[in-house]
Amino acid sequence: MNQKRIGVLLSGCGVKDGTEIHEAVLTLLALDRAGAVSICMAPDKEKADVVDHVTDKTSHEKRNVLAESARIARGNISNLEQVDANLLDGLIIPGGFGAAKNLCNFATAGEKCVVDPNVATLLRTLHEQNKPIAALCIAPTVLASVFGKDLHPTLTVGNDPDTAAKIEKMGAKHQPVEPTQVVIDTENGFITTPCYMTAESINEIATGTEKAVTALLSLTRVEATV
Amino acid sequence: MNQKRIGVLLSGCGVKDGTEIHEAVLTLLALDRAGAVSICMAPDKEKADVVDHVTDKTSHEKRNVLAESARIARGNISNLEQVDANLLDGLIIPGGFGAAKNLCNFATAGEKCVVDPNVATLLRTLHEQNKPIAALCIAPTVLASVFGKDLHPTLTVGNDPDTAAKIEKMGAKHQPVEPTQVVIDTENGFITTPCYMTAESINEIATGTEKAVTALLSLTRVEATV
Repeated sequence: MNQKRIGVLLSGCGVKDGTEIHEAVLTLLALDRAGAVSICMAPDKEKADVVDHVTDKTSHEKRNVLAESARIARGNISNLEQVDANLLDGLIIPGGFGAAKNLCNFATAGEKCVVDPNVATLLRTLHEQNKPIAALCIAPTVLASVFGKDLHPTLTVGNDPDTAAKIEKMGAKHQPVEPTQVVIDTENGFITTPCYMTAESINEIATGTEKAVTALLSLTRVEATV
Repeated sequence: MNQKRIGVLLSGCGVKDGTEIHEAVLTLLALDRAGAVSICMAPDKEKADVVDHVTDKTSHEKRNVLAESARIARGNISNLEQVDANLLDGLIIPGGFGAAKNLCNFATAGEKCVVDPNVATLLRTLHEQNKPIAALCIAPTVLASVFGKDLHPTLTVGNDPDTAAKIEKMGAKHQPVEPTQVVIDTENGFITTPCYMTAESINEIATGTEKAVTALLSLTRVEATV
């Protein structure tokens, strides 16, 4: 059986300064249950900040995005810079503030955000190869920044008017949906779902990630599988 | 509806020096799906060590068990020292080396390990109140250390002969099982399952944790729910 190989792009470990852990783990579970292989990856660079998840205070610690992301991946992770897009059938970006701090700087720059060059290159290459990309929670801001002006994709971040307005300023169309609903832009091959932007329970995250994975896999091409 | 309140005792964030993240998240999911409330908790103390999950090297960093565990709990976590056992209907301890480094020192001391005093007090109090305790992966070593000599409980850590021998030296009986099987010591109210001691996929972890949660909830008493 040719298994689909799906990249999972991580941005640290913990909702306040990295990848939202529940969204990442439930993405890995959904991919495994669907018979796909998860290829975890993250940028090898210093995190934008380190936030104490009890006190919400930012510390002076330095931590590395790849090393922290490896905690979610149990060490089975690749340096984003060394990932060959040709070996992937699609990509999923879980949420958490790491997506808006370490994959791009949306958390501080809003609609003027800049995307990490290696992230932007991978996304553009995958899109040119007609491979689908899913983004959860706040991660659609990365898609909006890379593709907004060119493709005007339809994306969702749930129902947060401020984030939705900024996504539209970046050129995307925002579609408000319920916490476990998935927006599928079939023309561009983008799948987005709100997860913890609006969800209140981990069971809702399981539902949303499973739907996103199902949609992603349905958009992968048979011939893309090696 | 009276919801069961189940403690989830964490020991950091990451399999090599803290709680195994998949086991913790899938425990939280199983509890939510079963209609129970998760009460996450961890000791407020320095971690035994900090391990880079890419290189496996130990660093000189200092991190706090409670603050790191809070990453898994999205900040919704209690200091173990302040947890009132009377408000819990049962407890689950996910695995990861944190259970053997921060909840006890089994990782370095083996069968001569000492359990964190606050952990030991909570476990003994819950057991005196006839409330069930589940331990995943390597976490049964904590149960063996606290209760082995007195209760000679039946536990499993899968099929690792070295760990099994040490558990038996602590007074417990070890029962080898398949990765997703659960050992239920009904006399003592202890539930154990191997998870990543032997499991090879995240789907197996979902199965094992769900079975453990089902068994745990079946052993909680109706009258214990407030």
